[in-house]
Amino acid sequence: MKPSSQLLSDILDDVRPLIGKGKVADYIPALADVPNHKLGIAVCYNDGEIIRAGDADEAFSIQSISKVLSLTLAMQNYKADEIWARVGKEPSGQAFNSLIQLEMEQGIPRNPFINAGALVVSDMLHTRQSAPRQRMLEFVRALAANPHICYDKVVADSEMQHSDRNAAIAYLMRAFGNFENEVVPVLTNYFHYCALKMSCVDLAKAFFYLANQGKPLGGARAILTKTQSKQLNALLATCGLYDGAGEFAYRVGMPGKSGVGGGIIAVVPGEMSIAVWSPELDPSGNSLAGTAALELLSARIGRSIF
Amino acid sequence: MKPSSQLLSDILDDVRPLIGKGKVADYIPALADVPNHKLGIAVCYNDGEIIRAGDADEAFSIQSISKVLSLTLAMQNYKADEIWARVGKEPSGQAFNSLIQLEMEQGIPRNPFINAGALVVSDMLHTRQSAPRQRMLEFVRALAANPHICYDKVVADSEMQHSDRNAAIAYLMRAFGNFENEVVPVLTNYFHYCALKMSCVDLAKAFFYLANQGKPLGGARAILTKTQSKQLNALLATCGLYDGAGEFAYRVGMPGKSGVGGGIIAVVPGEMSIAVWSPELDPSGNSLAGTAALELLSARIGRSIF
Amino acid sequence: MKPSSQLLSDILDDVRPLIGKGKVADYIPALADVPNHKLGIAVCYNDGEIIRAGDADEAFSIQSISKVLSLTLAMQNYKADEIWARVGKEPSGQAFNSLIQLEMEQGIPRNPFINAGALVVSDMLHTRQSAPRQRMLEFVRALAANPHICYDKVVADSEMQHSDRNAAIAYLMRAFGNFENEVVPVLTNYFHYCALKMSCVDLAKAFFYLANQGKPLGGARAILTKTQSKQLNALLATCGLYDGAGEFAYRVGMPGKSGVGGGIIAVVPGEMSIAVWSPELDPSGNSLAGTAALELLSARIGRSIF
Amino acid sequence: MKPSSQLLSDILDDVRPLIGKGKVADYIPALADVPNHKLGIAVCYNDGEIIRAGDADEAFSIQSISKVLSLTLAMQNYKADEIWARVGKEPSGQAFNSLIQLEMEQGIPRNPFINAGALVVSDMLHTRQSAPRQRMLEFVRALAANPHICYDKVVADSEMQHSDRNAAIAYLMRAFGNFENEVVPVLTNYFHYCALKMSCVDLAKAFFYLANQGKPLGGARAILTKTQSKQLNALLATCGLYDGAGEFAYRVGMPGKSGVGGGIIAVVPGEMSIAVWSPELDPSGNSLAGTAALELLSARIGRSIF
Repeated sequence: MKPSSQLLSDILDDVRPLIGKGKVADYIPALADVPNHKLGIAVCYNDGEIIRAGDADEAFSIQSISKVLSLTLAMQNYKADEIWARVGKEPSGQAFNSLIQLEMEQGIPRNPFINAGALVVSDMLHTRQSAPRQRMLEFVRALAANPHICYDKVVADSEMQHSDRNAAIAYLMRAFGNFENEVVPVLTNYFHYCALKMSCVDLAKAFFYLANQGKPLGGARAILTKTQSKQLNALLATCGLYDGAGEFAYRVGMPGKSGVGGGIIAVVPGEMSIAVWSPELDPSGNSLAGTAALELLSARIGRSIF
Repeated sequence: MKPSSQLLSDILDDVRPLIGKGKVADYIPALADVPNHKLGIAVCYNDGEIIRAGDADEAFSIQSISKVLSLTLAMQNYKADEIWARVGKEPSGQAFNSLIQLEMEQGIPRNPFINAGALVVSDMLHTRQSAPRQRMLEFVRALAANPHICYDKVVADSEMQHSDRNAAIAYLMRAFGNFENEVVPVLTNYFHYCALKMSCVDLAKAFFYLANQGKPLGGARAILTKTQSKQLNALLATCGLYDGAGEFAYRVGMPGKSGVGGGIIAVVPGEMSIAVWSPELDPSGNSLAGTAALELLSARIGRSIF
Repeated sequence: MKPSSQLLSDILDDVRPLIGKGKVADYIPALADVPNHKLGIAVCYNDGEIIRAGDADEAFSIQSISKVLSLTLAMQNYKADEIWARVGKEPSGQAFNSLIQLEMEQGIPRNPFINAGALVVSDMLHTRQSAPRQRMLEFVRALAANPHICYDKVVADSEMQHSDRNAAIAYLMRAFGNFENEVVPVLTNYFHYCALKMSCVDLAKAFFYLANQGKPLGGARAILTKTQSKQLNALLATCGLYDGAGEFAYRVGMPGKSGVGGGIIAVVPGEMSIAVWSPELDPSGNSLAGTAALELLSARIGRSIF
Repeated sequence: MKPSSQLLSDILDDVRPLIGKGKVADYIPALADVPNHKLGIAVCYNDGEIIRAGDADEAFSIQSISKVLSLTLAMQNYKADEIWARVGKEPSGQAFNSLIQLEMEQGIPRNPFINAGALVVSDMLHTRQSAPRQRMLEFVRALAANPHICYDKVVADSEMQHSDRNAAIAYLMRAFGNFENEVVPVLTNYFHYCALKMSCVDLAKAFFYLANQGKPLGGARAILTKTQSKQLNALLATCGLYDGAGEFAYRVGMPGKSGVGGGIIAVVPGEMSIAVWSPELDPSGNSLAGTAALELLSARIGRSIF
């Protein structure tokens, strides 16, 4: 069932009372300064229509949502075996930035959506791409059909200044032989990917390929095969929401990926891609009102993968 | 797409070469003695038809598949809040019988499908049911429309004689105040549930309610609400395959639950329930050929939740 | 330098202000009820003299100090290789009752002074002694030359009623094949050992053999060889104070063993055995004022092993 | 009892058959190339005499033995409270280079003799010393009365090229706010300390202050107070031998510190300092024949701290 603009608006009204009950990410000033009352949602339906409500056109820092984009690029540049020899496909059962499991499992990250896994993916892109940051920008601009998408340099620089834990993760993987390039340039790229500024509308458009068997909006040729698209959705369903993937599946029932900027993208395969934004996070690091909005949407349109 | 009997037969032929490459569970003699060449599959389609191939009518020890049945009974007897205060909904990222995470997380098991979680569920049933073993038998006989389903006493007794680790898990939860009854009678029930003998046909029929919004085969009244059925499928998708849930989602793309007896049940919501059986296991403890058969089935009928 | 009774008295006065700053063990009522102001010290010097101050003649629950006695009995009944194949000699770096390390190290406890290790030792005694509780009583009465030493049945029973975590530990070791007997009778013995009631004077006398190359007070024949006595002191120095062994060595500099009843025994090899008692514990579970008293004693008589 | 040169020679003969049963450290080529048959011992007695046998005058890479020197310098430059707020005093119960415990304990290393702890100490020296490498060289040359002691640049450079894990440790501590300086210069200093080349004779002389209440050989003024010297010996006894401290105390019974170059220093407080060298290591990373030599020495001269 295609949601109407009114339905999206009603959902935002219903979840707005949650604002004030979460916590805006504050580990870097550039994120802490985002007004906590921002709230937006956009749906890209399989007939090409974009439905939106609230602050759906305002760009924000997509943060870890970028991990899906970098993995998609890696899937274009590497054979499946090459990727999955260096990173797993299982939920971590631990915090997204923990080194404990990484050491116990010999430097092989559990999945590509925790920091360690996304750093390995960034390392892979660094090896095979000549200008990874430029390439990512072109990729996402094309997907979202928006040539104005850019990196937030203030955010990227700020992340780099608070990069000690991610540096520790990268060096630990290097120690296990699972990191090919110098740490600093890969970290720099990684933080740029995280610092992409996109709106809900941009995101809903950009991730439509996951709802459309690998084919992006506008009829361009597939960027992933049908099978790859299905596989990526499977990874999102089991590993996309940090250590809250089970709860998200239970409540929302869609493959999804969240970022600490308060954005979440979700997919109803074959039907639509969705993006929500509300900066305050729950204890697992996922947007509090954003998750609630997706839960209401799933219930009201009667759509989930279960 | 409804699979034909011929399709199922072909799939079994295609995966049969895997036999010999896994390992039959051998921690109790009663399981180790099962011939490794057994191979069966059954589908219960939403028009009521049962399609089958191979050893689909031969009963085997369902083992951890019973954890779905006991959770279903708990969902009938307890409010959601009561259940989820005592057990989580997240993948564990660890072996199914580990005590490490259980101690670190203060006696609250990660999900109801690892041993600790299923023991908590069994403890809950013990508190509110007068004859839990008899009740389970009636429940599963009705679901599968087979009055001959019974417990394999030899397996149940043998499990009890090798129960030290599960006893340790139960006592640790008692120490954290998350276990209400005496350990021995709850363990006894738990091992009986695991010792249920059912065929692929029995299992496909019994779990049809998960493909049918909570309504069992034969039009009886719903045993779970539509929402509960969706939630249970979500839990199976993220936590149902031990520490191999991500890989299973990636390859098969259906909610499922495996047992060390070599059985796996899987669900295409709205369409069909499936059961496979092949006793040899992969390193994660899931049926090797059974998983491969489900992967082929998913590909050939073009059905998955992603 | 032999401490005088006055010196001991002065030390108690100096540490008495610490009372109120620790926490009496309260996991069983029988321990929680002990008045927190109790404070005693006794020294057994190598000329046979007993010097004492404060509540040195009042019996209290020795708790984990008994782990040294049971290990001593095991060293009499088993060859060294037999013991150290089942329990390690290394500090644990973890809480005394944790199961995490025990599972990671395959059921082999780190040392005989954490609960898991003492349970293995109790299991060993159960295998080779016909009446372990009676035997322990005779042993300790002879060592302390006090036929009135007995078990506090209220404490032993209360421990048994709160034994879930220790049961979990024992069952986990059974699961790894490192526990030979039924869990309940071994736990019963173990809790009786812990429930021995002894005074500081009893303890100083009883452990004089560790200061005297294995020979107990009163010239009886050695209960350990000179080498065994040295080895046992080494184990106490590295593992005797739970996860506070390093701090105790740094401040006191003597091999020692504490119990949650607030007692600590310590040894200056070749010269004296010491016992202190003050029920309030520090966060590591060691007597707060007791440790301070030993630190002062070490400084004022200029004696430590370093 | 002062050991004779003949006694030392006999001991080396007795342990020489162990050569071939251990494993020379091979994580950097410069260490892997050391001939495995090297074997030396030196004692610095409290009358000033140096007794030696075997390859006692040949310099080797002291590696982690340098951690005692850097801690001694930190004890001269910082108040006790300043040091022990940033590093603990407890045995780790884990591998010397693990990040698991470090993350669980919020970036506070367990003790100054595991890598993380020594890196914190190096960071402290970097903050308060203007030329830390030069200062260390002067310090150790004076202690050993040997102006020819120097850094092995090949070793230091090679360590730096294999420094990923130590970099990970340092960055993780920085992430927890327990590292003040840039990582690279501190690592550079740390690896230089490890790359000090000293002979057994140099080491026995250099560490005589630990046997002499803080006063170095030759009657110079104390470098540590009597209390500090006692405290440092206590730390060595509980934490000096990686995860083999308990075993070393049990067998040898002296405070000591080992390095992966195959050296071990040990102390009989008040009487003598000892250094042994044999490059092959046991599984804990301590010199196999070196430990055995110290065990024999302890037994034959009847000296230990227990």
